[in-house]
Amino acid sequence: MNVAILGVGTVGCEVANTLIKNKQVISARAGVEITPVIGVVKNLDKNRNVNIPLSDDLNAVIARDDIDVFVELMGGIDEPYNIISKILKNKKPVVTANKAMLAYHRYKLQNLAGDTHFGYEASVAGGIPIIKVLREGLSANHIQKIVGIMNGTSNYILTNMMQKGFHFDEILKKAQELGYAEADPTFDIGGFDAAHKLLILASIAYGVHGDPEDILIEGIENITLDDIYFANEFEFVIKLICVAKRNGNNVELRVHPALIDKNNMIAKVDGVMNGVSVFGDVVGETMYYGPGAGGKATASAVISDLIDIATNSSRPMLGYKKSLEGVNLKLIDSNDIRTKYYFRLKVEDNIGVLAKITNIMSQNNLSIDTFLQKPKKEDEDVATLFFITHTSLERDVKKVFSILEKESYIKAKPFMIRIES
Amino acid sequence: MNVAILGVGTVGCEVANTLIKNKQVISARAGVEITPVIGVVKNLDKNRNVNIPLSDDLNAVIARDDIDVFVELMGGIDEPYNIISKILKNKKPVVTANKAMLAYHRYKLQNLAGDTHFGYEASVAGGIPIIKVLREGLSANHIQKIVGIMNGTSNYILTNMMQKGFHFDEILKKAQELGYAEADPTFDIGGFDAAHKLLILASIAYGVHGDPEDILIEGIENITLDDIYFANEFEFVIKLICVAKRNGNNVELRVHPALIDKNNMIAKVDGVMNGVSVFGDVVGETMYYGPGAGGKATASAVISDLIDIATNSSRPMLGYKKSLEGVNLKLIDSNDIRTKYYFRLKVEDNIGVLAKITNIMSQNNLSIDTFLQKPKKEDEDVATLFFITHTSLERDVKKVFSILEKESYIKAKPFMIRIES
Repeated sequence: MNVAILGVGTVGCEVANTLIKNKQVISARAGVEITPVIGVVKNLDKNRNVNIPLSDDLNAVIARDDIDVFVELMGGIDEPYNIISKILKNKKPVVTANKAMLAYHRYKLQNLAGDTHFGYEASVAGGIPIIKVLREGLSANHIQKIVGIMNGTSNYILTNMMQKGFHFDEILKKAQELGYAEADPTFDIGGFDAAHKLLILASIAYGVHGDPEDILIEGIENITLDDIYFANEFEFVIKLICVAKRNGNNVELRVHPALIDKNNMIAKVDGVMNGVSVFGDVVGETMYYGPGAGGKATASAVISDLIDIATNSSRPMLGYKKSLEGVNLKLIDSNDIRTKYYFRLKVEDNIGVLAKITNIMSQNNLSIDTFLQKPKKEDEDVATLFFITHTSLERDVKKVFSILEKESYIKAKPFMIRIES
Repeated sequence: MNVAILGVGTVGCEVANTLIKNKQVISARAGVEITPVIGVVKNLDKNRNVNIPLSDDLNAVIARDDIDVFVELMGGIDEPYNIISKILKNKKPVVTANKAMLAYHRYKLQNLAGDTHFGYEASVAGGIPIIKVLREGLSANHIQKIVGIMNGTSNYILTNMMQKGFHFDEILKKAQELGYAEADPTFDIGGFDAAHKLLILASIAYGVHGDPEDILIEGIENITLDDIYFANEFEFVIKLICVAKRNGNNVELRVHPALIDKNNMIAKVDGVMNGVSVFGDVVGETMYYGPGAGGKATASAVISDLIDIATNSSRPMLGYKKSLEGVNLKLIDSNDIRTKYYFRLKVEDNIGVLAKITNIMSQNNLSIDTFLQKPKKEDEDVATLFFITHTSLERDVKKVFSILEKESYIKAKPFMIRIES
């Protein structure tokens, strides 16, 4: 089976080199030899750690009759989509690691692919075979909920804040030095990377439509050591999580930091690692853990797709050809989300302030489950209050915050974290 | 696709009922309807919570032309093997949850099956799709090591000893009351159930041959609260683990209690749950967690195999048709295992005893990494000593124990636990 690798960066090199290095075990499992016959690059002069022929003529490579499968590792959204569309129209199988493209074009690609193999295991959670698990391993189940930690950069930062007491800015800088965070880290710490992955998983689990712009995405930029203090006091950890959750014919999709009970299995996923918990109506909870990024972990997933193609074992791209649930499930408005909330409020340290706040909350359907006031240093005149609400509506929380923001005794922008139970 | 269920106990009922209840989502993923058309039972008079036709005429059912797939859930070893052999000779696909049969007959079944689909996802770790993960998801990798917690009964007992201070006998009794342990618990707590599962995984990972009698199997019966005390002091947990580990062309397979660093992901698998860590040369460590037993979790796995068959997505049974590694890997003698060891010795509380023991150890190539003497109560005249050795040979440990057993100052049978790092 001859493979062309479109884009020969870190991942592309690892794919080519692993296909060569692990040839024996791969051909035993694939039933045929899988050979990287050509790599396509933009700049032929650049030095690459790879020993396969290279070309900068993408169109010529796509037109080659002797290539059986194309691996797309170029990145981008519309450009790779157009290239892959052209390849699928020729009925040639495609493997990609491109989550951003899939977040926008996955349903069009499923239609275009039809019975042609289309692999994308590497697009979510790196080396964890979560696509295969969800599409095939748990195929007997209605999926009730998915909770994933699917951004290693954010998890590294939060883990270090929790376990070592670093401030956000300090540990972000360290993550950048170590290569765990980009110079512009927004895509990771803002939750956008995780959101792309969540949309892909939600399509397999629910067949639900939606672009990244349609779902709730919040990052970890505003988490402080005050929040960590509270989490520790009440046996929580703080994680950037992706949630896909079904409720009747509605599905909620959201990416945000959350307080999670520290005894929860997903709470134990630390550092740069990824973890995904899947709740099925038959099996219950299963959890999948591993490296979510890196050239080698991603190559492991890309090559497993190639072996699936070689053994003719692929499914329809998203795992189904007719409606999963008989009806089309609907993405709900994020204002309609119901969960428990943690509030952190910086207030004037005066008698009566607490009564005013709780009054505003109760007038807007929020009731308090837990309250904590942080011991104040002598020289401070601002008190830090922490609340946990009973299950509440996102819309009501937003309204309370918009009222509180205008009150004179509120000394900093009110902050909340959702609680995942 | 018409399915016959051979054996309609807890799991068989759940398979039939889930096929009916989740018909929509299953047919969407399978591309066809999967219908349980007949169940075979020994006793037709028994009341069963299932709504499919039943028969007690196994041979008549096997001969039926309208049945596309047979699900074997009868239990036993040679009887189901003979029945499945007959079915495979008719080129009809088979799905089984029968780990004991596979532990003895898996290679013969792979030969018999040839290109006929043979599913056995349910045979290892219940609802966790570990067979699919190992055979397909991680197919790019040489597997370096597998460490599994694959017996829920033992893990429940050890977790409760660690976390709640129960004695072994107390918590075993409680597990029996709760239905987590059988009246005769030997198969679970003796490590035999876990060994069957390990042999299956090792065949997929390494193609290595061996029966349960060929590998090291030790149970948890002799763990005491003294060992728990030591584990807590040194930040270990004690787990019954299955290890498959490659070293050059050798493979070691073993089931035994082990001390594991409590920060290790597999150490966090508590209660009746199962977890399997797989180390691949490309991907690194990935870990899989979920319910390892129970009717529903097992049914989830059985049905995923049926959907694989419906979509024509099965692989060769063990995942390969030619040698995985170019050479046949060899199962090593358990005396040749090298690991670190924890010793618990009850000794006469006299000056000079420690010197005598360490002398015997050093004469037999054992050197000490850590030593602890447990504070003794006033009225005791026996001291408890704990040692951790540097990496040592199993053969040397056995020799030291055979010497120590005969020494007059040793007041109880010396006990050791291997350490998994």
